[in-house]
Amino acid sequence: MGKPDAEETFREVMTGELAAPATPFARAARDFVFGDVWSRPGLSRHDRRLVTLACVAAAGSPGPMEEQVHAALNSGDLDLATMLELVLHFAVYCGWPKGSELERVVGEQSARIARENGREPEPWPVLPNDGLGENDWEKRLARGEEVFKEINLLPGAPPRTSPYRQAGVLGFVFGHLWLRPGLTRRDRRILSISCVGTTGAPTPIRMHVTTALRSGDLTREELDEIVLQFAAYAGFATGAVLNEAVEAAAAASPA
Amino acid sequence: MGKPDAEETFREVMTGELAAPATPFARAARDFVFGDVWSRPGLSRHDRRLVTLACVAAAGSPGPMEEQVHAALNSGDLDLATMLELVLHFAVYCGWPKGSELERVVGEQSARIARENGREPEPWPVLPNDGLGENDWEKRLARGEEVFKEINLLPGAPPRTSPYRQAGVLGFVFGHLWLRPGLTRRDRRILSISCVGTTGAPTPIRMHVTTALRSGDLTREELDEIVLQFAAYAGFATGAVLNEAVEAAAAASPA
Amino acid sequence: MGKPDAEETFREVMTGELAAPATPFARAARDFVFGDVWSRPGLSRHDRRLVTLACVAAAGSPGPMEEQVHAALNSGDLDLATMLELVLHFAVYCGWPKGSELERVVGEQSARIARENGREPEPWPVLPNDGLGENDWEKRLARGEEVFKEINLLPGAPPRTSPYRQAGVLGFVFGHLWLRPGLTRRDRRILSISCVGTTGAPTPIRMHVTTALRSGDLTREELDEIVLQFAAYAGFATGAVLNEAVEAAAAASPA
Repeated sequence: MGKPDAEETFREVMTGELAAPATPFARAARDFVFGDVWSRPGLSRHDRRLVTLACVAAAGSPGPMEEQVHAALNSGDLDLATMLELVLHFAVYCGWPKGSELERVVGEQSARIARENGREPEPWPVLPNDGLGENDWEKRLARGEEVFKEINLLPGAPPRTSPYRQAGVLGFVFGHLWLRPGLTRRDRRILSISCVGTTGAPTPIRMHVTTALRSGDLTREELDEIVLQFAAYAGFATGAVLNEAVEAAAAASPA
Repeated sequence: MGKPDAEETFREVMTGELAAPATPFARAARDFVFGDVWSRPGLSRHDRRLVTLACVAAAGSPGPMEEQVHAALNSGDLDLATMLELVLHFAVYCGWPKGSELERVVGEQSARIARENGREPEPWPVLPNDGLGENDWEKRLARGEEVFKEINLLPGAPPRTSPYRQAGVLGFVFGHLWLRPGLTRRDRRILSISCVGTTGAPTPIRMHVTTALRSGDLTREELDEIVLQFAAYAGFATGAVLNEAVEAAAAASPA
Repeated sequence: MGKPDAEETFREVMTGELAAPATPFARAARDFVFGDVWSRPGLSRHDRRLVTLACVAAAGSPGPMEEQVHAALNSGDLDLATMLELVLHFAVYCGWPKGSELERVVGEQSARIARENGREPEPWPVLPNDGLGENDWEKRLARGEEVFKEINLLPGAPPRTSPYRQAGVLGFVFGHLWLRPGLTRRDRRILSISCVGTTGAPTPIRMHVTTALRSGDLTREELDEIVLQFAAYAGFATGAVLNEAVEAAAAASPA
């Protein structure tokens, strides 16, 4: 029957009963993913969900996305508004099409939870325009430059010399996205690390991990837990790159 | 020596000489990718570059990204401004981190081309704020709703009920990105199809392919060529999903 | 301290000593990936390497790619010619750019192994053209149609109605690739399942898994081991899709 705590952890995380595993994969999912990973201390369940949701949405696999979104909402670890804010951050870092799929699943699963509880589906309120941030472009870009420096711990921001930098990085990502309420800066760092991690690209991975550690938003121990949670869902191939980045960042900035 | 036209096509596309292939991969790259794919009529070299750049940047493979960016700029098929506009569109559809890597490569390769031609690197001019589009949020969202309907051939736009929809889809993607000059709407469709194609997600793939065909921006024959170019660079695994989408779209809307 | 046999398995698989794990990730890599996965019976080390190489090359992470390619060649489980044939199959299914990166790594690691053994790097002989297969296009396409039906267990092949089908699927993938020596049909099925698996796209995954089982090339037990090996390197998110496909295929065609 596997480790006694694996079923218990599965029940708490997935808010349902674990079917008897019929394959080596299913047994490892129970004993490793739930028994050895989700059951660990050192990172809250809320934070493990951010990593996991980013990984399953990046993988684009319908089944796991549905199960994890359902579990995150049904457990109450993330409410609908937070989940929808997560979709936007994820879409920016993993691309619009994957964000679209994730939001579709969020809609289906929140309706499913309402049905399961005999409630009417929660209506999604129309958002007011004042949530869109600064609309004076010069002020918005200037603010984006400040936020870029804060998040990336750099003395300067990129010059406004390309559409990607001006309209994208300064105008939208740092001039708006990172300033939105609904997710903390620490939450956004966890999501960004997970999203960048799925690309397997060493340079941006190292940058995001190093600034998360040096900013004090995440500790070495928390990053270590993030790496393991990430490796379970995104695989040990890219997990190894993330792990290497954390070890390098920790070596470069001793606690 | 392989097909006589494979080397010739390679020379034209990559603006360099093909090394004698010493492996099955190199052989097939010459004979299939250049001899059978790039050499085909039915899609311009410019359009094949859009597909290829999206695929290599999505794959995140440094070497091929460098080679393809160099070839696209060095051939004159894309100028620097167009390439930088492409980076923004790509970043939105494949995610910020991959866009960042692509723009880094564009900078390196445009400098390399300048060196190869004994010129000083082309400076990137600071972009004026008026290129950032409508800054009255209500007008911008309303415009985004119109453009969303035009591009997606839908009677309505999504309600402003989530950050992804309001700030993202309506405020940025359709309220600004698709309205930017520098790439035609047809170019943006080719890039979007290629980016969405790499996700392998059937639903958004089918949506993008169907609207590209029904809008008249791309013909069935052009879409067929895009699928083959895509399959060569993104692989036949996701290529199969894209091909299926084109066949379904063509069956649903006969010429 | 982890399982006693994990270090031993690591030593055999990676042909080197395991550094003392300093992070939860490194401990899980030892105890789960090597202690629980690589150490399992039911699938040969050669076959586990095919799955692993496809996953690390698809992830595109330089470090893991280098380590796995070095281990596969250094162990003698794959010789250089087989590895180069694998690169071509991988490139076709996961795309040229990632194939190009993998082949670069193969070149570096085979040279490294030569150095480690005080040998001159093995020269890569230029391949004779007679390895390129049938060059009478009608015969090649007709053969491609036959092979397509054999591999996919279908009564018919796709009509030659699109470039993807004619030049791609019939002319190249089934008219040449699957007929090449150097990898068995069973090897190519393992690679294809692994490559398609990384896309997370349920439809092609189900097709490849079902035909592998129904053809008799892979047993249910072997497929179960492939899923676990895949999940370890590509992650449990996409692993779940592959596992579901194997369970569905097994249920549909009982042994």
